[in-house]
Amino acid sequence: MSICRLLISCPDAHGLVAKVSQFIFEQGGNIKEAHHHLDDDNKLFFMRIEIDSMTLNCSIDEFQKNFQKVAKTYQMSWRLSDASYQKRILIMGSKATHCVADLMHRDHEQELDGKIIGVLSNHNHLSKIAKWYEVPSVHIPVNQETKDDDLAKISNEIEKFNPDVIVLARYMQIIPEELCDKYREKIINIHHSFLPSFIGADPYQKASDRGVKLIGATCHYVTSNLDEGPIIEQDVIRVDHADSREDMKKMGQDVEKITLAKGLQYHLQDRVIVFNNKTIVFN
Amino acid sequence: MSICRLLISCPDAHGLVAKVSQFIFEQGGNIKEAHHHLDDDNKLFFMRIEIDSMTLNCSIDEFQKNFQKVAKTYQMSWRLSDASYQKRILIMGSKATHCVADLMHRDHEQELDGKIIGVLSNHNHLSKIAKWYEVPSVHIPVNQETKDDDLAKISNEIEKFNPDVIVLARYMQIIPEELCDKYREKIINIHHSFLPSFIGADPYQKASDRGVKLIGATCHYVTSNLDEGPIIEQDVIRVDHADSREDMKKMGQDVEKITLAKGLQYHLQDRVIVFNNKTIVFN
Amino acid sequence: MSICRLLISCPDAHGLVAKVSQFIFEQGGNIKEAHHHLDDDNKLFFMRIEIDSMTLNCSIDEFQKNFQKVAKTYQMSWRLSDASYQKRILIMGSKATHCVADLMHRDHEQELDGKIIGVLSNHNHLSKIAKWYEVPSVHIPVNQETKDDDLAKISNEIEKFNPDVIVLARYMQIIPEELCDKYREKIINIHHSFLPSFIGADPYQKASDRGVKLIGATCHYVTSNLDEGPIIEQDVIRVDHADSREDMKKMGQDVEKITLAKGLQYHLQDRVIVFNNKTIVFN
Amino acid sequence: MSICRLLISCPDAHGLVAKVSQFIFEQGGNIKEAHHHLDDDNKLFFMRIEIDSMTLNCSIDEFQKNFQKVAKTYQMSWRLSDASYQKRILIMGSKATHCVADLMHRDHEQELDGKIIGVLSNHNHLSKIAKWYEVPSVHIPVNQETKDDDLAKISNEIEKFNPDVIVLARYMQIIPEELCDKYREKIINIHHSFLPSFIGADPYQKASDRGVKLIGATCHYVTSNLDEGPIIEQDVIRVDHADSREDMKKMGQDVEKITLAKGLQYHLQDRVIVFNNKTIVFN
Repeated sequence: MSICRLLISCPDAHGLVAKVSQFIFEQGGNIKEAHHHLDDDNKLFFMRIEIDSMTLNCSIDEFQKNFQKVAKTYQMSWRLSDASYQKRILIMGSKATHCVADLMHRDHEQELDGKIIGVLSNHNHLSKIAKWYEVPSVHIPVNQETKDDDLAKISNEIEKFNPDVIVLARYMQIIPEELCDKYREKIINIHHSFLPSFIGADPYQKASDRGVKLIGATCHYVTSNLDEGPIIEQDVIRVDHADSREDMKKMGQDVEKITLAKGLQYHLQDRVIVFNNKTIVFN
Repeated sequence: MSICRLLISCPDAHGLVAKVSQFIFEQGGNIKEAHHHLDDDNKLFFMRIEIDSMTLNCSIDEFQKNFQKVAKTYQMSWRLSDASYQKRILIMGSKATHCVADLMHRDHEQELDGKIIGVLSNHNHLSKIAKWYEVPSVHIPVNQETKDDDLAKISNEIEKFNPDVIVLARYMQIIPEELCDKYREKIINIHHSFLPSFIGADPYQKASDRGVKLIGATCHYVTSNLDEGPIIEQDVIRVDHADSREDMKKMGQDVEKITLAKGLQYHLQDRVIVFNNKTIVFN
Repeated sequence: MSICRLLISCPDAHGLVAKVSQFIFEQGGNIKEAHHHLDDDNKLFFMRIEIDSMTLNCSIDEFQKNFQKVAKTYQMSWRLSDASYQKRILIMGSKATHCVADLMHRDHEQELDGKIIGVLSNHNHLSKIAKWYEVPSVHIPVNQETKDDDLAKISNEIEKFNPDVIVLARYMQIIPEELCDKYREKIINIHHSFLPSFIGADPYQKASDRGVKLIGATCHYVTSNLDEGPIIEQDVIRVDHADSREDMKKMGQDVEKITLAKGLQYHLQDRVIVFNNKTIVFN
Repeated sequence: MSICRLLISCPDAHGLVAKVSQFIFEQGGNIKEAHHHLDDDNKLFFMRIEIDSMTLNCSIDEFQKNFQKVAKTYQMSWRLSDASYQKRILIMGSKATHCVADLMHRDHEQELDGKIIGVLSNHNHLSKIAKWYEVPSVHIPVNQETKDDDLAKISNEIEKFNPDVIVLARYMQIIPEELCDKYREKIINIHHSFLPSFIGADPYQKASDRGVKLIGATCHYVTSNLDEGPIIEQDVIRVDHADSREDMKKMGQDVEKITLAKGLQYHLQDRVIVFNNKTIVFN
C-alpha cells in the first residue's frame, strides 16, 4: 500500500473537516487514518490524514496543486508527504554509544520510517559501530580554541550529507544558532532528564543531589535556547536512595534510547506539528 | 456549550468521512473533536464525533431522522447521544468500600459525566457512605438457599432504579445471564487482576502464588462469561517478594479504584465501542 | 504481634551490623525486617530494623537505656518507636477535597499506621467531610490584612491538636518559618508537579505552557524553602496535546492523592530518614 | 574494591542476623550492603550480604570453610560468590535480533556483571552480530525429523561452551528436560507476554485477540514446564485498539530487551534466590 500524509494547521472554521474530506474524496483518495485537534484557547485546528495514494485519480503533484485553493480559503499551513520516501537521518554523537547502537539496530531491522545516512561525531567512539552497519562516519573534534573553524567544518559536512532530520544522540555540544534556524524542527535531541527539570550539564548529578524518586529523558526539537525546544516525548523510571549518580546514568540509558527512538519515529511518520513551542503528536 | 456525540460503526467505504462530515456541515454542526479507527482485518470503520449542538440549524431529533438515510446507505450501526444528559449510575457493591467511596466522592465533586442514583449491596457495609452522600441504598443479601428469590429481588430493584449503567464496584457475585443480556454493554465490572491472568476468585492469592512482579486491575463490560467481557481499561503496579497477599490487596485497591473510575468515565462520555469482544476507546 | 522500629544513622564503621544485631539478640529481640544503606560518598551508614518486641527480655525503656552505650560508641543518631502507637495526624486543607477525602477514607478503613485527629482549613469546604468521618474540624481563614493574627491562631490551634505529623493536603498557604522549624520533618506536603519542575503557583498551567508529556505529584517534607524540602515520594501520569490545564488538574488529582497517601504511610511506619535534604526510604 | 556475596536461605531462628554478622566481623569482613527477607508463612529467612573481601583476615576459601559450622547449626542453604569472577554467558537465539543486539552492546560497554562467550542459534540470523562483537557463534538448525540428533548436538555444544548461565533471547524452541535439570536456575528466558497470561506460541496475537490494554514481557528461569518457571522480572507498556498484532510485536521488543537485561543482571549479581517456584530479588 502507498500512503501519503496530509498535515494541516489553520484557524478553526465551520465545515473544515467536511471541506477537506470532501476534497480528498473528489480526488479519489481513501482515508486510512485521521486525527484532529482543536486548540480551544487559540481557536486553531490541526489535522493529520493518511490517504491511500493508490486510490487517487490524480498524481500527488496534482493533488498538491489542487489543494492550494482549499488551503488558501482557510488560511492553512499544510504539507503533504509521501510515506514511501525514506527520510535521510544524520546522527550526531559523542562518546556515549547506547542511543547510536540502538538506532543503528532499528535501522538495520528496517523498523524506522527513514534511513540512517551518516554519523558525525566529535569523538572517535562511534566509528566502529558505524562501520559494522556500513554507514559512513565522520569525526570532527570540537576544541575550544578552534571552535569556529570546527563548527564551520561541521556545517559543511552536514550540508554534504543533506539530511532530512538530524538526531543528536547524546551529542553534548551546543548547536550554533544558524544550524538551529536552518534545520528548524528538523534537529531532534535527547536530553537525559525529565525537562524542564535539570536543564544543562550533568542532569543525573543534579537529580541525585535533589533526591528525586524518578529520573527521565526528554526527546525534543532543538532551538537556540538550550533544552527549551518543543518536547516530542518523555518518559521516566523509578530510582531510590540506593542509586548513585553512576547507577542513574546506567539506568537512564534505557529510557534515553527508547524515548529518542519513539520521538524520532513520530517525526519520521509526520505525526508531529509544532505550535507555540509545544508539539501536537498524532499517535 | 452543548455537545452531542455521534458514534458510528460500519463497513469501510470510500468517501465515508466526507459523507458524514458533509452531512454534519449541512445541518450547521461544528465538529469539536473527531476520532476514527479503521479495522483493517475486518474492513470496518469506527468513528466518534463531538458536535457543538448549539450550531445545529435543526433539532437533535431532526438530525437523527435526517441521518438515517446516510446510515442506511453505509449500513451503519450508530447512536447519537446528548452530552448534557446525565447518565444514571447504579452502584452494586459488597463489603469493600474503596471503589464506592472513590466514585461517590467524584460524583459529589461533579467530576463524572453522570450521576450516581443508588447503591445496591449484598452486605450492609455501604449504607453509611451512601447516606453521607445522600444516595439511596438498598441492602439485599444473597444466600445460597434463597438465591433465586434474592436475584429476583435484585432484578426488581434494578428495574426500579432504572439505571443507564450499572457499576459492579467489587460486587463479588455472579450476575445472572438475563441481567447480563438486558444490560448488554451497560454493566461495568472492576476485576482485581490484570486479566486474562487470575480469572475468578482471590486473584491476589493467585498472584502471590505465581510470584508475579506486577499486579493489576481490569475494568470490563460484564458478559455471561465470568471475567471474559470486553476490556475497557487496565493498569498495574509493581510488587516484590516482600509483598504478601494482604499487602497486594491493600496496594491493589488504589489501582482498582482509579482503573474503574477511568473506565466508567470513558463509558459515560460515550468513548467506547464494543466489537468482537474488544473495545475501541476513543480518548 | 508487637513491633518496635529502630532507626540509626552513623558514620560507617567496621562491625556495625554485628554490634547492633548482637545487642538486639542479647535483649532477646527477634529481627522481623532489616534494611541498610551505606552512603559511600559521605561514609554514613543508615539502618532500619523491625524487632518483635514481645520477644524482648526487657522493657522498651530499658532497651533504649541499654542501647545508649552502643549508640555513643558509634556516634549514632537513632530513635526507637513503638509501632503500636498510633501517630496523631492533623490535616490542613483548603478548597480542594480529593486528598482529604481519600485520607479520611483510608483512616476510616484503618489502613493508615496513625489516626486523623483533626482538620484545619482556611476555607469551609472540608467541614462536611470531617463531620461525616467524625473528625473535629477548625476553620481559620487567612486574609492578607490580618495574616499575622491568623497565623498566630493557626499555630495556637495546631498546638491544641498536638499532632505528631501535619499533612498539607493541598493547603495552598505558605507555612511560617517557626512552624517549619518546630515541626521539622513532621510536616508533609503534596505538591501538584513533578518537582523540581514547576515550583510555586499553578504548576498545571506551567506544565501546559511547557508542553510536557507527563505530569506528576511530589510528596515532601516542608522546609522554609518553598517546594524545596526533602522528597519522600513522586509519581507521574501521561498527558498529551489534547489535555488542557483543566484536564491536567483533574487527571492530576489521582496522582496527588495516591502519592500523598504513600508518602504519609512511609512516614507513619518510620521508614524515612532525612539526610542532606534527601530521604532514605526503607520500603 | 573486591566484593564477595553471601546468599543464605534457612529456617527462621532467633539471633540469625547477629550470628552471621558477628561471624563476618570476626573474619574482618566489612558489610557493604545487606538485604533480608522473612517469609512469614513458611518461617524461612533469606539473606544477601555484600562483603568487602579486601578487609577479610582470611582467604575466601578459609571463609567458606569456617562458615560451614554456622551454616550447619542453622540448617542453611548458602553460597558465597566472588564478584570479580565474570560469569560466562551463552546466548541462544533464533531469528529475532533485538534482544541479542541489546545484550551484545551491553557486554561491549562492560555493563554486564559477566561476559558473553558465545551465541548458539537455530537460524543463521545472529552470526553477523556475533562476528561484529567478536563472539563465537554456532548455528545448529533444529528440524522435526532430526530433532533428537539436533538436540544432542546442542547439548554437546553447550557443554563445550561451559557456560555459567544460558540466556534464551527469543530462542523459540523447547529446551529438553535434561538440560533444564542440568542448568537448574541457570537458564533465563524472555517470554513476550505478561505471564501467566498468554502462555505458549504467539502471545501478541493472543493479546490482540483478547483486547488487553497493556502488553508485557516476562524474564524467568526455565523449568521443564513451559513458561511456568520462577519469574525474575516483568514489565508492561500501554497499547490501544489501533495497535495491531504487528504493532504490538514491534512495541513489545523494547520491553522484552530491557526486561531480559534487567533480569539477567539480577542473576549475574547474585541477587536472586528461588523458593517455591518464586524468586526473591534483592535489588
